[in-house]
Amino acid sequence: MKEKIALILLSGGLDSSTLLAYAKSHGFTCIALSFEYGQRHHIELKAAIEIAKLNEVREHKIININLRSFGGSALTAEIDVPKHRSQEEMDQEIPITYVPARNTIFLSYALAYAEVMDIYDIFIGVNAVDYSGYPDCRPEFIEAFEKMANLATKNSIEGNKKLKIHTPLIDLKKSQIISMGLSLDVDYSKTVTCYDPGESGQPCQVCDSCKLRIKGFAELGLKDPAIKN
Amino acid sequence: MKEKIALILLSGGLDSSTLLAYAKSHGFTCIALSFEYGQRHHIELKAAIEIAKLNEVREHKIININLRSFGGSALTAEIDVPKHRSQEEMDQEIPITYVPARNTIFLSYALAYAEVMDIYDIFIGVNAVDYSGYPDCRPEFIEAFEKMANLATKNSIEGNKKLKIHTPLIDLKKSQIISMGLSLDVDYSKTVTCYDPGESGQPCQVCDSCKLRIKGFAELGLKDPAIKN
Repeated sequence: MKEKIALILLSGGLDSSTLLAYAKSHGFTCIALSFEYGQRHHIELKAAIEIAKLNEVREHKIININLRSFGGSALTAEIDVPKHRSQEEMDQEIPITYVPARNTIFLSYALAYAEVMDIYDIFIGVNAVDYSGYPDCRPEFIEAFEKMANLATKNSIEGNKKLKIHTPLIDLKKSQIISMGLSLDVDYSKTVTCYDPGESGQPCQVCDSCKLRIKGFAELGLKDPAIKN
Repeated sequence: MKEKIALILLSGGLDSSTLLAYAKSHGFTCIALSFEYGQRHHIELKAAIEIAKLNEVREHKIININLRSFGGSALTAEIDVPKHRSQEEMDQEIPITYVPARNTIFLSYALAYAEVMDIYDIFIGVNAVDYSGYPDCRPEFIEAFEKMANLATKNSIEGNKKLKIHTPLIDLKKSQIISMGLSLDVDYSKTVTCYDPGESGQPCQVCDSCKLRIKGFAELGLKDPAIKN
């Protein structure tokens, strides 16, 4: 049987770590792709490196891209990460942590790398249920990107393979993602989800991202293993 | 009347220099966006800087992106640029000068920058007539990108403006692009189109890109002003 190779967008967070385990469990040989994009913290990237190793990926490519030069987001510029927002506030507006066109840029690099490596399966851990309302996490965005990608490459003219963007987490609640990951032996104590971790790497527990994650574990009657006492 | 602002992808070549003059002549205040992407030569970027200044753009943003790390193209890796190809050869296959997903990545950055700057008009000088057969220069690619872009940003959820990707050169022959530029006073002696210029910046005159350009001028009974004797 021909080996199936997949490119996995890996941030080092809960979702993408589950995604990697999922792709592996579905028989894919995995290549991880991470970005250093002017995040305010590098702890997430360190987590990505450790998780890629634990999953014995064939290769882990890290690309340095400068989204900081654009500004416009609390994750890349000198803007405070909002904290203590209520569920209602989280539901109502796109927060300042949104990085303009981030997933479009990430997926474009993935597309380029996939083309060079002759890969036709890209996995991204977007989620449209327990998420922060980012536009580029919605199914209609992913579908439109896939359609565009299949017109963008050499293969779209000379070949006949179809590139697929896999989003196995898109319809799952956070607790369902965690359940899936636990069944695949994901070690969530090693994943970093917090938008604003301290020097120690400890999650702040009050940003949107921490709150969604803690709630997901709580729904399963569990404590977030990344929080050390 | 409200000022119309446009973001212009400017490489410093013949097409994008014409594009900038075109957008300006249509009443847009222009912001130029160029990329340093591991090209084998920086002469093109120097030309872009000069042309942006000549056109009195409001701002010229240069983004350094590392496409070299992917390899896979004669324009970013240590692969020889093909020369002396016949028109038939040029028509038949996508050449090694193709940079994987380049326009997708360029347009994604443009989208991010447009979002931060609240701009809804992006100009790109792709051309599907006298070109090298790159997949990401075709109208169907641009349409699919525009559709995706209009699902990717905050505005697609919270606003009601539609982002437009303008491609005024897409259906023109090279000679028609040159005619248009000459009527807009573009100084083509300052533009760099060659894939492999010498140290002096002189065009090689035998790569695909030089040949298409020389032919375009010849059809108008002109000599390419970039070629100095």
